[in-house]
Amino acid sequence: MNLSCPVPITNYDQVTLAHGGGGSLSNQLIEKMFLAELSNPLLNEGHDGAIFDLPGKLAFSTDSFVVDPIFFPGGDIGDLAVNGTVNDVVCCGAIPKYLSLGLIIEEGFSMEELWAVIQSIGKAVRKAGVQIVTGDTKVVEKGKGDKIFINTSGIGWIPKERDISPKRCRPGDVILINGNIAEHGVAIMSSREGLEFETSIRSDTMALNGLIEDVFKVTREVHVLRDPTRGGVSSALNEIAKSAGVGIEIDETAIPLAEEVKGACEILGLDPLYIANEGKILVILPEKEASAALKAMQNHPEGKKSAIIGKVTSDMPGILRMKTSVGSTRIVDMITGEQLPRIC
Amino acid sequence: MNLSCPVPITNYDQVTLAHGGGGSLSNQLIEKMFLAELSNPLLNEGHDGAIFDLPGKLAFSTDSFVVDPIFFPGGDIGDLAVNGTVNDVVCCGAIPKYLSLGLIIEEGFSMEELWAVIQSIGKAVRKAGVQIVTGDTKVVEKGKGDKIFINTSGIGWIPKERDISPKRCRPGDVILINGNIAEHGVAIMSSREGLEFETSIRSDTMALNGLIEDVFKVTREVHVLRDPTRGGVSSALNEIAKSAGVGIEIDETAIPLAEEVKGACEILGLDPLYIANEGKILVILPEKEASAALKAMQNHPEGKKSAIIGKVTSDMPGILRMKTSVGSTRIVDMITGEQLPRIC
Repeated sequence: MNLSCPVPITNYDQVTLAHGGGGSLSNQLIEKMFLAELSNPLLNEGHDGAIFDLPGKLAFSTDSFVVDPIFFPGGDIGDLAVNGTVNDVVCCGAIPKYLSLGLIIEEGFSMEELWAVIQSIGKAVRKAGVQIVTGDTKVVEKGKGDKIFINTSGIGWIPKERDISPKRCRPGDVILINGNIAEHGVAIMSSREGLEFETSIRSDTMALNGLIEDVFKVTREVHVLRDPTRGGVSSALNEIAKSAGVGIEIDETAIPLAEEVKGACEILGLDPLYIANEGKILVILPEKEASAALKAMQNHPEGKKSAIIGKVTSDMPGILRMKTSVGSTRIVDMITGEQLPRIC
Repeated sequence: MNLSCPVPITNYDQVTLAHGGGGSLSNQLIEKMFLAELSNPLLNEGHDGAIFDLPGKLAFSTDSFVVDPIFFPGGDIGDLAVNGTVNDVVCCGAIPKYLSLGLIIEEGFSMEELWAVIQSIGKAVRKAGVQIVTGDTKVVEKGKGDKIFINTSGIGWIPKERDISPKRCRPGDVILINGNIAEHGVAIMSSREGLEFETSIRSDTMALNGLIEDVFKVTREVHVLRDPTRGGVSSALNEIAKSAGVGIEIDETAIPLAEEVKGACEILGLDPLYIANEGKILVILPEKEASAALKAMQNHPEGKKSAIIGKVTSDMPGILRMKTSVGSTRIVDMITGEQLPRIC
């Protein structure tokens, strides 16, 4: 934890039940801590909700974050909660604008850690160019929660020429990804008690709105955007294949994967295709648009290792299959659940 | 719990960690249970978020619900979560349209209870005329949560002639409320272990969009709308007085309060002014509009006991005071926290 400034509420070093009670201690937390970091004209109104104009087609998404541990290599629950919802809004083809922030804090959670999380949220919203405009804080008794859970919901607006949906996936489309897979999941696993093997693997958590806007600058013909979070690339592509009634074939050798992550997965007996990502996006578009999109992605800081990893076919509808490194083809099923709980 | 139809997922009688893992068990929960009750074209898209047109000025609000117990006289955490966010959106002057639903479930929570909560959510959204359009489910290990926590975020649109804000509270305005106070809080308290005194007091949880639209039919000059939830009427009016820099004077004898609730408060040593409501709204508008608004409220099923309870003054800015039943006047402070935690 790096606190760039001292914890602003000095009267309490832990969160108490009264901080979630809607009275003066709640207000103190909001004014002295949350607004110190997250202030903007809409949030500062202190209304029951935020009021704004946002003409046109909108995207609305929600995500709760229960990641354990809350601080991990490459990020924490704060920036994860911002980036996760920003990316969900991006996957609707939208330009994310406004976020809500709902905190469920366990009694006794340290003010210092809360402040670190809030600062991380502040940094992430500024980096992504979005604003927290409305929020809510609840506190539950010790032992009835786990440090902090965060819900973010997000709203973005969709330029009218865009039509992004899993159902638009077409035979002949190709599948791009913006870099190495499985880093978030492996970073979380490596930071958990009992799984402390030597590694410098960091979560890939990041907001991808800037990257995707660069793609839209070179092509209007994006069909699907999908962030392969829980369940990894395999679950995301399985869902798309089923939703669109198409087959998807990916090429194992084309999928960007760091050697260290590959090694960690081998030690742990995990398949990187099923491991959560928090800064990756699958971009599906017609083959003729692929090279321009790939170049735009590779030119962006968050897409240097972008690659074309597969294609959409009319045969084997609903099925994801992979051409393996040894030349065979195998079906990649959906798993029943995430390999490790509370990965995000 | 009244289950109007059998629990749709028979393979599991409890929620497992894998149900929150983003894989096939998550999908089964969504398809077999959530969509069975909450289905609508936007939600059914199964996208990362919902996409819709909503032109004009918007309101956006969020609330997390951690009420304990989750089933209580008059409601449960499901309808509470819908009604609470609907009312927050209403308090922005908006017509609520779309809600998100974020569930954080404790491992081992019974499918039967989950289904009861989901059915209650379905009933509440249909009654309020809103839709759940996007959602998320996480599961945490047993002992790291408490049955179920629910976040709802809501979006509504605001007809352009409306301008509702705590800051618009003006000297000369009067304050109306739509009925008996303190019923939600007392219902929760009475249903908690160790506080089982005989009572038929029920939570007032309800959505107030219909009632408020009836007010807007008779007057455009509504200045403030506020639901006095956590912290009760006193916290809500204190916040408004501070925000607008006005004084507020309420009349104890005018505040609707059921005898039974009054009695329960006396036994428990609680002040009903500080107790949470979940189906009450404070309507603040110019005195000349008051009788029309009052009549509209009294004519609505959710406002039969509506009353004028106070007025806004230019003296004593930032202060809430009350003319008591014995004729004296006392200052009603904000409390530091809710008198009982997890009231909503």
